[in-house]
Amino acid sequence: MSVAATQIETHHALVPSIEADFALPSEFPLEAGGVLHGAVLRYSLYGEIDPKRDNVVLVCHALSGSARVHEWWPAIFSAPGLVDPEKEAVLGINILGSCYGSTGPSSINPATGNPYGANFPLVQISDIVRAQALLLDKLQIDRVKLAIGASIGGMQVLEWAIQLPTRLARAIAIGAAPLGAMGLGLNHLQRQAIMLDPGWKNGNYPPDTPPRRGLALARELAVCSYKSNDLFAQRYGRQPDRGGEDPWHDTGPHKGRFDIAGYLDHQGEKFNARFDANSYLAITRMMDLFDPTRGYATSDQAWGRIQARMTLVGISSDWLFPASDVAAIAKQITAAGASCEYRELVSNHGHDAFLAEPQALLEILRA
Amino acid sequence: MSVAATQIETHHALVPSIEADFALPSEFPLEAGGVLHGAVLRYSLYGEIDPKRDNVVLVCHALSGSARVHEWWPAIFSAPGLVDPEKEAVLGINILGSCYGSTGPSSINPATGNPYGANFPLVQISDIVRAQALLLDKLQIDRVKLAIGASIGGMQVLEWAIQLPTRLARAIAIGAAPLGAMGLGLNHLQRQAIMLDPGWKNGNYPPDTPPRRGLALARELAVCSYKSNDLFAQRYGRQPDRGGEDPWHDTGPHKGRFDIAGYLDHQGEKFNARFDANSYLAITRMMDLFDPTRGYATSDQAWGRIQARMTLVGISSDWLFPASDVAAIAKQITAAGASCEYRELVSNHGHDAFLAEPQALLEILRA
Repeated sequence: MSVAATQIETHHALVPSIEADFALPSEFPLEAGGVLHGAVLRYSLYGEIDPKRDNVVLVCHALSGSARVHEWWPAIFSAPGLVDPEKEAVLGINILGSCYGSTGPSSINPATGNPYGANFPLVQISDIVRAQALLLDKLQIDRVKLAIGASIGGMQVLEWAIQLPTRLARAIAIGAAPLGAMGLGLNHLQRQAIMLDPGWKNGNYPPDTPPRRGLALARELAVCSYKSNDLFAQRYGRQPDRGGEDPWHDTGPHKGRFDIAGYLDHQGEKFNARFDANSYLAITRMMDLFDPTRGYATSDQAWGRIQARMTLVGISSDWLFPASDVAAIAKQITAAGASCEYRELVSNHGHDAFLAEPQALLEILRA
Repeated sequence: MSVAATQIETHHALVPSIEADFALPSEFPLEAGGVLHGAVLRYSLYGEIDPKRDNVVLVCHALSGSARVHEWWPAIFSAPGLVDPEKEAVLGINILGSCYGSTGPSSINPATGNPYGANFPLVQISDIVRAQALLLDKLQIDRVKLAIGASIGGMQVLEWAIQLPTRLARAIAIGAAPLGAMGLGLNHLQRQAIMLDPGWKNGNYPPDTPPRRGLALARELAVCSYKSNDLFAQRYGRQPDRGGEDPWHDTGPHKGRFDIAGYLDHQGEKFNARFDANSYLAITRMMDLFDPTRGYATSDQAWGRIQARMTLVGISSDWLFPASDVAAIAKQITAAGASCEYRELVSNHGHDAFLAEPQALLEILRA
């Protein structure tokens, strides 16, 4: 195959064949007690579902992702041995609570005619998965060939594997586990940052004047938790801001950033251009609450339900979802009698390695 | 010696023999270009300085400490082999920029008659040490027997050892090094949190209505950086808040904390009762800027100036000042021809181990 041909095929694979909204039942009850009325799921399909309906790869996205898998994880399409875009159909579904097409806090609440804002009900990963299963029913997909996701995407994969065990042939969850105390604490602080911004207005901010500084601060803290000490040291060290600020000079109150601060502020600004603060609050809460064995008599009983051929991937430098936590789950799944392999992505990129090092990730998944 | 006698002696040792303000020269120029007018240093002296003036132990405090060593590091007084409170005099000096008696942002600016607020000039660790040396001159202490400190206190010790090498016989710096990119980033975010609070008012808040929520958020983030994943997992795990909140129940917008969040919020509140937001801004900046070899042709030239018998202590679980950073400095000092021993405090308490595990710290210092 010539290089040109490869490029054309890749280009072809990166365009969704369908982008649509799927209407959930007019009342969609949530595990925590709330109800969504007239909610929708935005999804993107790449390639064609074959007549047997058994060639679908479900890609679950992380906190700030979307149904448009090609925009945030194009590597999934270029993974010989994992996904064959000629033969397989890739399905991305935006999660409830997000701001990329599915119903979330910035959607209109049919009961009031205004955006839900802070009144968006508490949605959990279990609700996300239950809603996704309804879309799969509609698409007549009984069983996906592979479900794959990282971070909150990995949480969805684990939840799928336990709650709907017959519907996944293979499942890969990367950098995902119930959040530990450090992660719960950092998420709490990120929410405090948003709510501290006077522009938050108890969640009822006008869409054009959102709490930008609060959301930026939340994102910047999250970015610290997604990366590693080591990577930051290597990339930014103690260098002054590349824009020319001088931390050592008395330039007035609290000016003069180091390069890492300039980098973080840039990340905060970029995030404001593409994300909604109330969605951020909603999704960090569902991240906190994820605990797929909760409600079972024993965790063995939950993990033992898994029928998919499961692979868990821990990231060596991940301090938000430590590799040891991921490895411990793999062990529990195996101990409960289900099939689970554990692999470790050795990277100094921290939690973000699933986005930053796609080739290394694909290599260990193919191994 | 009877237990009763020991108790009486300990009690005696914990009461300062002198607490006083030392007036710096009417103009005290700062390295970054500012000048402090009529500044003072608050100090506490425990025990008596002997006629030879050679029995003084200088204790340097960390971010939120004070001259009153007995209030935050009583262990230093009960350290057989390190400090003998019968024979030695312990001197604590509050740093410039603080809010515990020395001149800081909440002090009155003689030029305006109002508190400095955000106009407090940029103070660095080198300024702190130069001011402390003037107090030692006044007290006729040419050379301290021991200078000891952790975190920003350890930064002062390192700065002392390089800048005024003849004035320390022995020096111990714990959990201190120039801050890496992660630490610089987290300090930046803490300052953003304070400045995001509408109550900050560009640093000119009335003393009775300070930016409480911003300072609390800053402190809570700092507390995360002072502790370890492991300790938080052990102490708080995924337990709901001990006050009875239920994270899984839809109790309205963003209520229902986990225990770690309740703990952090409690730390934030406690800190507000005792610390000033502008001091926090000033001291985190001096923490950022600490780099004692800066300005020397080579770092060897700086480290080689040290004459004190030096001990550096790294804390195994410290991710704010990684033990590897501390060990690297010890190596550089030795390589530069000065005397330096490195010891590691094995603890899962993170950076805070110097406060949380005083007995273990004393044991490795005596070893």
